Amino acid sequence: MQIITDPPKNKWPELLARPLLNSDALEDSVKKILEEVRQEGDRAVRSLTKRFDGADIPIFRVTPDEFDQADARLSSDTKKAIATAIENITRFHKAQMPAKIRIETTPGVQCWQKSVPVHSVGLYVPGGSAPLFSTVLMLGIPARLAGCERIIVCTPPGKDAAIHPAILYSAKAIGITEVYKVGGVQAIAAMAYGTETIPAVNKIFGPGNQYVTIAKQIVSRQGVAIDLPAGPSEVLVVADETAIPSFVASDLLAQAEHGPDSQVILITTHPEIVEPILSELKTQLAALPRRNIAEKSLSGSKVFIVRDNQTMMDMVNEYAPEHLIIAARNAETLAELVVNAGSVFIGNYSPESAGDYASGTNHTLPTYGYAKVFGGVSIDSFMKKITFQELSEFGLRNLGPAVMNMAAVEELEGHRNAVKIRFDYLSKKQS
Amino acid sequence: MQIITDPPKNKWPELLARPLLNSDALEDSVKKILEEVRQEGDRAVRSLTKRFDGADIPIFRVTPDEFDQADARLSSDTKKAIATAIENITRFHKAQMPAKIRIETTPGVQCWQKSVPVHSVGLYVPGGSAPLFSTVLMLGIPARLAGCERIIVCTPPGKDAAIHPAILYSAKAIGITEVYKVGGVQAIAAMAYGTETIPAVNKIFGPGNQYVTIAKQIVSRQGVAIDLPAGPSEVLVVADETAIPSFVASDLLAQAEHGPDSQVILITTHPEIVEPILSELKTQLAALPRRNIAEKSLSGSKVFIVRDNQTMMDMVNEYAPEHLIIAARNAETLAELVVNAGSVFIGNYSPESAGDYASGTNHTLPTYGYAKVFGGVSIDSFMKKITFQELSEFGLRNLGPAVMNMAAVEELEGHRNAVKIRFDYLSKKQS
Repeated sequence: MQIITDPPKNKWPELLARPLLNSDALEDSVKKILEEVRQEGDRAVRSLTKRFDGADIPIFRVTPDEFDQADARLSSDTKKAIATAIENITRFHKAQMPAKIRIETTPGVQCWQKSVPVHSVGLYVPGGSAPLFSTVLMLGIPARLAGCERIIVCTPPGKDAAIHPAILYSAKAIGITEVYKVGGVQAIAAMAYGTETIPAVNKIFGPGNQYVTIAKQIVSRQGVAIDLPAGPSEVLVVADETAIPSFVASDLLAQAEHGPDSQVILITTHPEIVEPILSELKTQLAALPRRNIAEKSLSGSKVFIVRDNQTMMDMVNEYAPEHLIIAARNAETLAELVVNAGSVFIGNYSPESAGDYASGTNHTLPTYGYAKVFGGVSIDSFMKKITFQELSEFGLRNLGPAVMNMAAVEELEGHRNAVKIRFDYLSKKQS
Repeated sequence: MQIITDPPKNKWPELLARPLLNSDALEDSVKKILEEVRQEGDRAVRSLTKRFDGADIPIFRVTPDEFDQADARLSSDTKKAIATAIENITRFHKAQMPAKIRIETTPGVQCWQKSVPVHSVGLYVPGGSAPLFSTVLMLGIPARLAGCERIIVCTPPGKDAAIHPAILYSAKAIGITEVYKVGGVQAIAAMAYGTETIPAVNKIFGPGNQYVTIAKQIVSRQGVAIDLPAGPSEVLVVADETAIPSFVASDLLAQAEHGPDSQVILITTHPEIVEPILSELKTQLAALPRRNIAEKSLSGSKVFIVRDNQTMMDMVNEYAPEHLIIAARNAETLAELVVNAGSVFIGNYSPESAGDYASGTNHTLPTYGYAKVFGGVSIDSFMKKITFQELSEFGLRNLGPAVMNMAAVEELEGHRNAVKIRFDYLSKKQS
């Protein structure tokens, strides 16, 4: 890790810049696959699955038998862990359910706002080396709570045409039984355009490799919504002298093991803790199965030493990390200063892993600085807000003059007339 | 208007299809302008303003003097109308302010969600023929309520280098004084990239012509957020025998006058009202200053005659209109069936114009079927939700085993270790 002391503020943007994501090179091949699925449906999905996953899948949809087998194969400890995660995620997301808002803005004018679920959503769950069944929970639970009518999951099969039992068990545990053994760009295409057996959905969620990410971006310009713009995962740890070096090192590594492009940053007000953290990092890294990946990620990562808490938190907000860990005295007070971050982990006993799996918060979060404008996935992501208004006769007479005046100034006579014609009608009716 | 009776459900998608928006032809010229501003800043903005608006603007920012002049030039009636609009829009949007949510999901695990304003926003306000000062209110009021730190407005100058007084008056009335006399693609570029005198912002809002829309789409792929994907404005009116034909006609025209590509649809369960509405339409059209525009829009529009209320509302949800007017018996009950729409106007005395200007609801709404997944602009559009979590020692010991189990199944040893190292530390400490 590169150590930088007292970086001047005007250098921050450069020092905190994310690596450029150049997707142009991949875009053509992604577009080709999308188009293939759009035109040939299941036939294309089948042949692409053979090509990319090495699996021959006659029927994409997971059968009740396969769910039963998954259930039989999963350990009771894992089932218990999943039950805990489901409980906490459900509690936190249920608390987010938006209330209906209804007020009389002026006498005779009722306005209200109602949240309505998005009808159909598609959840993409990466498979392969690490079966991310936690993603099933993080996307599926709020989708169910929001009341989405159709929830489907697409996830790539292994070479043996099977899906990891934890993925199937998690889906069924939260009431999702429409799971398709399809991954990669072909899955995004199927959920965007629909095939003979896989339905098109209104909104696509979920993480994925670079190809999946580009595919989501492309279909999002074609009328399908997506959850978030995506970039590599990130953690920023802020630490003072109360931080425990081995904890901080473990947090940096938990992020670094995600992928070689994972972004890892440490900011501290106390230079003396840097050496112990780096030394711990070395020890822990040696024991990590994914150490090759973590090493690559760490080689591009940075440690900043700054003068005070305010500078530290200013730098956090400039970077807008996906995950922020605050391992410092008065961590909750420092957390009050956060204005740009996806999810914040406060104190020495709140590792990112807690939120990744089971504390209750969502782990689908804005990366690449998008935390400046977007929040992570929440109940809101599965709903949209519709506004309503009802004017009584009195309300129209009350509000009408203001509307007519403004429409006239905007030179929209048709807008003015829609009020005037009602106004005149009521005046006549009254006399 | 084309009249279609009892369309079979499988024909709906085709009959309700929006015109294809092909922006490819314009994209190159938009990109060229964006790039010019990115590289040359104010100099490019100045020369583009000369070219496109015919105005020579030495200093883009509106001066206090210009605000004063606007105040002096605006009629007191219009000022009163604006005051009414501000009051109602403020009331409805204030009611939307999100509450902080905080719960203990499981003993020792505190999770909370806090809404934080987007730091800086840019509001684009079209000028030209119709000075859309209502847009200043619809975007500026929620931006102020949300607490955005920097709010700027860009709006094109007339040939005389001036901005319509209603725009300046409205901005100042809601506390926005950073207004720039810049329009078109050059305004979007300035707000996305920043120039020497115009600051880059985090999120850009506002309607505009096709060029502005394309520019917003392009910069939204470069890290700046935008409010909504845009298409031509739309109204769908549902009417039964209780609808008043002249009212319905006025509503169709209020939409049709927006632009030749405006989408206008009428659905009714009562064929006998179609003829009176069309006849009224003809009469009112003749009196409309923007009748050429309205005529073009109407020539592509449709009337559907259907059997019953359920079919009518199913068709509404299939189309997902930006504006929906329900002029029918039990309108509020029918409104309960709406799942896809931007804003809904209920009963005979709730013309769309009321919501366009002053009822309190927002007029920046999802078009082109995006109402299936997006709501209109609201307080949420100017904020993002950050999640926080804090585990106590007890919380970590409570939740730790579940997290460690799940991380192990996902084969993310680093994630598991971040918990294990704390768990072991606490066990040692206790013993």
